[in-house]
Amino acid sequence: MNEPSLHVLAKLRVIYGDTDQMGVVYYANYFRYFEFSRSEYLRARGGSYTDFEKSGFGLPVVSAHCDYKRPAKYDEVLIVDVHLAELRRASMRFEYEVRREADGVVLATGHTVHACVGASGKPTGLPESLVKLLRP
Amino acid sequence: MNEPSLHVLAKLRVIYGDTDQMGVVYYANYFRYFEFSRSEYLRARGGSYTDFEKSGFGLPVVSAHCDYKRPAKYDEVLIVDVHLAELRRASMRFEYEVRREADGVVLATGHTVHACVGASGKPTGLPESLVKLLRP
Amino acid sequence: MNEPSLHVLAKLRVIYGDTDQMGVVYYANYFRYFEFSRSEYLRARGGSYTDFEKSGFGLPVVSAHCDYKRPAKYDEVLIVDVHLAELRRASMRFEYEVRREADGVVLATGHTVHACVGASGKPTGLPESLVKLLRP
Amino acid sequence: MNEPSLHVLAKLRVIYGDTDQMGVVYYANYFRYFEFSRSEYLRARGGSYTDFEKSGFGLPVVSAHCDYKRPAKYDEVLIVDVHLAELRRASMRFEYEVRREADGVVLATGHTVHACVGASGKPTGLPESLVKLLRP
Repeated sequence: MNEPSLHVLAKLRVIYGDTDQMGVVYYANYFRYFEFSRSEYLRARGGSYTDFEKSGFGLPVVSAHCDYKRPAKYDEVLIVDVHLAELRRASMRFEYEVRREADGVVLATGHTVHACVGASGKPTGLPESLVKLLRP
Repeated sequence: MNEPSLHVLAKLRVIYGDTDQMGVVYYANYFRYFEFSRSEYLRARGGSYTDFEKSGFGLPVVSAHCDYKRPAKYDEVLIVDVHLAELRRASMRFEYEVRREADGVVLATGHTVHACVGASGKPTGLPESLVKLLRP
Repeated sequence: MNEPSLHVLAKLRVIYGDTDQMGVVYYANYFRYFEFSRSEYLRARGGSYTDFEKSGFGLPVVSAHCDYKRPAKYDEVLIVDVHLAELRRASMRFEYEVRREADGVVLATGHTVHACVGASGKPTGLPESLVKLLRP
Repeated sequence: MNEPSLHVLAKLRVIYGDTDQMGVVYYANYFRYFEFSRSEYLRARGGSYTDFEKSGFGLPVVSAHCDYKRPAKYDEVLIVDVHLAELRRASMRFEYEVRREADGVVLATGHTVHACVGASGKPTGLPESLVKLLRP
């Protein structure tokens, strides 16, 4: 599942409110960027997380990780390169690479693991509709 | 409704993530502090916003305002002095004063207006239980 | 200063992290959207807040206000229509209208007032370069 | 470095703005809680991150991780149990366990790794004063 075609590039601009007094993006905000790119990923595949939730499912984060290489700064345009690295019966793993658009320098990499839950909040297998959407 | 006894003092510490690259608390975060103090206000009156929501109501913000006097900084302890300035049939208005604990200097003042909504999201009169709680 | 040509439309998408348990955008986050649109405004006029800060100035928020009409929801595309409503010797006022892109419905309106400060953090007149940029 | 005495318990209350439309704390906000507990850790050891920064140093996050066990909810009091798991020449690693105060249930665990940088932003050894503070 590593073909380039399945990578989605999500683009965003760093706002002032994302920075901290070190003059760079506060570390927790990268996870907001990751989430933004996940939505874009689903959209690029023809789906929508809103529809997924409306059908009674959820994909809560089980695990999240980020390695910070270089700081992102206010007003910079960032590209979050996201791909689905693993698709299991009841969970999935996304991987992320955050690059500065201006020069392509990698600022951070990370991943998140998600479990599928049903309306009751109980773990459940991924619905067929989502698997079809995500499987190449 | 201006007796000192009805003022509630909510205490919090500024975290790094609340600051921006100007080295001070980002302006939007004062509204988080306001909200924190509203919860504390209800708790001090013997109520809880969670219970209020569980009974099928909500108090969405209709209007919010903040005047910034002096910057709050990382690691400072702030006191949010909150009081209910107006209680109407279907709405209420809270007023806030944010002070630095160390020297009592006023950093910001503001207010929020809230409408009461029922389970359907439609405007409704404040439930009697809440009015009793809030009325001195 | 009210010609339509001076309105700038900044576009953004609501992320999951912007919502709260009411299922709508948390009220403080509109001020993040306002700030995003201010940056876009300066950019549209050929300036950049980063350059402005690098030249030793700042435009801290003195006052911020938002009226909430209808809730914004996850994944919706919002248009922040921003314009400079007032330009004084040492301060300025931006006005905002947040609309849902899908149907143009106005979700919120607001304004912010900014004072100009120099490197020392002391109030100062707006530099000529900024005034030129902002004046039609 | 695993003696219980070196664990610091930082206490906080979940605000509405920390939740998302799933009705639980948004995953990125746990990293804000981690940071809050780091400040408390330094304070408990007789130090302050503000003083550390004033002396020209910084401890940017190199890596951050969180495993989510059970959701934290609005208005709950959380205890972040933080300890310094590793202290190297130029880096350190904090470990965190987030528990619900009401029943002690573990909601999340995680860690962060920090590098020491000097005024120039370049990596440098941890200053002696900090090491003394942190070493039992």
